[in-house]
Amino acid sequence: MTREFMIRPDPSAPNLSTAVTGRDQDGNPVETRVVTEKPLTLFLNRQEIVTMMTIGDHPDLLAVGYLLNQNMLKRGDTISAIDHDEDLGVIVVRTPAETNYEAKLQKKVRTSGCAQGTVFGDVIDSFEGVKLASNSRLKTSWLYALTRKINTAPSLYLEAGAIHGCVLCEEDRPLVYMEDVGRHNAVDKVAGWMFRENEPADNKIFYTTGRLTSEMVIKTVMMGIPILVSRSGFTAWGVELARKSGLTLIGRARGKRFIVLSGEERIEFDADTGYEPDEDHKHRRKGSRDD
Amino acid sequence: MTREFMIRPDPSAPNLSTAVTGRDQDGNPVETRVVTEKPLTLFLNRQEIVTMMTIGDHPDLLAVGYLLNQNMLKRGDTISAIDHDEDLGVIVVRTPAETNYEAKLQKKVRTSGCAQGTVFGDVIDSFEGVKLASNSRLKTSWLYALTRKINTAPSLYLEAGAIHGCVLCEEDRPLVYMEDVGRHNAVDKVAGWMFRENEPADNKIFYTTGRLTSEMVIKTVMMGIPILVSRSGFTAWGVELARKSGLTLIGRARGKRFIVLSGEERIEFDADTGYEPDEDHKHRRKGSRDD
Repeated sequence: MTREFMIRPDPSAPNLSTAVTGRDQDGNPVETRVVTEKPLTLFLNRQEIVTMMTIGDHPDLLAVGYLLNQNMLKRGDTISAIDHDEDLGVIVVRTPAETNYEAKLQKKVRTSGCAQGTVFGDVIDSFEGVKLASNSRLKTSWLYALTRKINTAPSLYLEAGAIHGCVLCEEDRPLVYMEDVGRHNAVDKVAGWMFRENEPADNKIFYTTGRLTSEMVIKTVMMGIPILVSRSGFTAWGVELARKSGLTLIGRARGKRFIVLSGEERIEFDADTGYEPDEDHKHRRKGSRDD
Repeated sequence: MTREFMIRPDPSAPNLSTAVTGRDQDGNPVETRVVTEKPLTLFLNRQEIVTMMTIGDHPDLLAVGYLLNQNMLKRGDTISAIDHDEDLGVIVVRTPAETNYEAKLQKKVRTSGCAQGTVFGDVIDSFEGVKLASNSRLKTSWLYALTRKINTAPSLYLEAGAIHGCVLCEEDRPLVYMEDVGRHNAVDKVAGWMFRENEPADNKIFYTTGRLTSEMVIKTVMMGIPILVSRSGFTAWGVELARKSGLTLIGRARGKRFIVLSGEERIEFDADTGYEPDEDHKHRRKGSRDD
């Protein structure tokens, strides 16, 4: 059974983009499509966590993925309910018992107020505990097939711009392609999906349009995915963390070109880089400076 | 006195980027430069606020600008000290008396735990209270001059990629050009600079490489700047908030082309769009999908 594009963007969905009118450089009226975003406030049981801006297509996956990637929920935890009030823009993720995070927060709050800093420290601790699968492989022929399939898939990006995407892949097949105004939201939605489907991470390749920053590397590692690819660039700490954790990190992947700065032992250079056509101009994506 | 580029990126500064080695698509060794980022934990008096990733060039301006743009500090507040411990990656902004934000936080904490959601509500309230200067102008000839000067200025972006920039401008002159791994950090640094210099906002133009999302529009309005320009695209709520607040919002500004979706009454179409040369290829910046 070969799975492909189980979830993919639906640029025609009416609630995800809208038309607006303005003027161009010559003062002429012009109509253009822009993505819609709405605030979503996330609660873990009775604990208010954060308000996020999202296009609103998978609020449940975003909520769970966010909590997982912030280490507020663990992979072994049980979720008893997810209550979404679309009008209020509120989503509540419920667990049968108070989570470790809530207990720790209560304690921190009694001693020193809000616990924002705790989150960062917890995430780093969790990151350092992850062991990525060493035997996963990435053939460069798969890489080229993936980027071609992803760049040509209909998307809100091609339709309306100003949006980020990330794609969970297996070999040369994109499986789950999520978009959102915030790059981290797109990543969290994938994490939420993997949790819901109990999907293994060992054999996956994660593709993002965003830059390979420390935060991006940390999330990928915490999701247990051993290979991360982007058409964008790197930060030094992103590279350092990738090397520390053994993540395979490939950036500036455009057409047949790329740079691997970590974990190159997983890569099988099977594609003939002399014969791969450069990206055709119509589907070429601009490089991303994103956050 | 015509001021120009009072602050600008210094791509040669040793602590802002570093060289790393990896392999390219043919398996050949390759060396490339990447930007460095480090965590900075911000305190407001004894209240821990957030940990941010930053290139670390203006921690004091980032700290103050963050607090202002999150409405935790008001424009009339006095800062008694800013203590930065570079080794620990901690910066403390001190005020003579407890701020309103801290008082509100203590109250919220006693009733319901962490106050993350309060921040969002406060920001929106503050945003709605701003009245932008209606008589500020943007000549399209200035716009073209600005983008040309900004795109050709030496920068970490041109040097190492994967970074965001924003520039505070006056007429056709860039004044303060800040970069950072997080686009919002670059914006906050400008806000911090304006606060320190007691710089008026009414006659300013704000240029960003990032997308014109609701958060970007909100920050610009809260900084009191009436004109916002980006080479990137828009989100629907960004456009809506711009129209609500009367902000002049110009996006997809590349070469001689742009779209204005709000506040076009401030724009004077004085440039002859037929004769403006397209951006030369060397200095062309890729469009941004950033967050």
